[in-house]
Amino acid sequence: MAAENFGLLIHSVSGPGVLHQLTGVIARHQGDITSVEILEQGPPDSRIYFEVAAPSGAAALLEDLRALDIIRQVEAVQSLEKIYGKRVIIIGGGAQVGQVAIGAISEADRHNIRGEHISVDTIPLVGEQPLAAAVRAVARLPRARALVLAGALMGGDIESAVREVRAGGLMVISLNMAGSVPEAADLVVTDPVQAGVMAVMAVADTAKFTLDRLKRRVF
Amino acid sequence: MAAENFGLLIHSVSGPGVLHQLTGVIARHQGDITSVEILEQGPPDSRIYFEVAAPSGAAALLEDLRALDIIRQVEAVQSLEKIYGKRVIIIGGGAQVGQVAIGAISEADRHNIRGEHISVDTIPLVGEQPLAAAVRAVARLPRARALVLAGALMGGDIESAVREVRAGGLMVISLNMAGSVPEAADLVVTDPVQAGVMAVMAVADTAKFTLDRLKRRVF
Repeated sequence: MAAENFGLLIHSVSGPGVLHQLTGVIARHQGDITSVEILEQGPPDSRIYFEVAAPSGAAALLEDLRALDIIRQVEAVQSLEKIYGKRVIIIGGGAQVGQVAIGAISEADRHNIRGEHISVDTIPLVGEQPLAAAVRAVARLPRARALVLAGALMGGDIESAVREVRAGGLMVISLNMAGSVPEAADLVVTDPVQAGVMAVMAVADTAKFTLDRLKRRVF
Repeated sequence: MAAENFGLLIHSVSGPGVLHQLTGVIARHQGDITSVEILEQGPPDSRIYFEVAAPSGAAALLEDLRALDIIRQVEAVQSLEKIYGKRVIIIGGGAQVGQVAIGAISEADRHNIRGEHISVDTIPLVGEQPLAAAVRAVARLPRARALVLAGALMGGDIESAVREVRAGGLMVISLNMAGSVPEAADLVVTDPVQAGVMAVMAVADTAKFTLDRLKRRVF
């Protein structure tokens, strides 16, 4: 069952039940769907992207999909996992998010040159509730490995959200800031550029850095 | 049919056919799936996230999903579209991607404060083929609205990829650089910070800036 993972870019008619029909064909091929994205949703047309590992291979699956009435076009493509890889997410105030991004992007560049696939994604936001919702939503983003909280003051429900996503297995790094979020994080870093660099080092397989082996939690 | 869009976070057993069963229940409720993500894929368990508009509402759908054998837990959550919104994607060399990100993140902050939802996502990469593949893959990323190419030299197959994604409706901004990519872009900007700012202005509903109304294409 070492079935290779491939991407399927599907152009179909749109409407309720389309995804059900497509996944039915994939299930009949014993295909394991590792990722799915709805790229465009008509009417009149939809574009849907799957990543699938199917023991029967891409060709047989493509043929059966093409036989469906709802299909306009299907093509096999390279998987997103291979292209964009692990994601480091940076959330907070624009000034600090930008500085953390500088550090994370430079460091990701150094690892990607050696074969890693790390992308750095950011959202500048203000306010306790939008920030708490964004932190909780990181757990619903595909391929997210670490979260950096970049601001000057974060606490209250943001702290609860940090504890929840950490309990779900996500690594959280906080800038040294006012409020209770630093107490809830895995690691607290004062320099925003260094925080970005450390976040990438912590998720890179090409780095020797792991949080577990650090002797202190605040830098 | 002004059914409200809601998120469904589903914790199920894993294996082929799970997505087919879940989408079957949603299709029976005439639910329109606007987004779907596989967050974790066991064994033994999977976590799957849907965004659905169903005329019968969230409660009836939740009840029928809970009745499935494969389900461990289901909850209704806020949609990702509302939280992370439109995405600006920056691809290229670490030094320049970082500078474009600084401009884009600062500008996104200003618009998000006024009610926009814009996130800025980056991947530092080197080499013609990885870059061309990443450009083509932007068309498969959900919510992507603009692409900024940030480097010192890009051409060949990257140029072809730019023309393909533009034909599919994606806006492409290029730094002023060596190679043929600037000729293929919608807009060419020399200062990387300004390129990031302009990309965000171009996708923000809170800005008055549109590429169509510009009198020149190179800045």
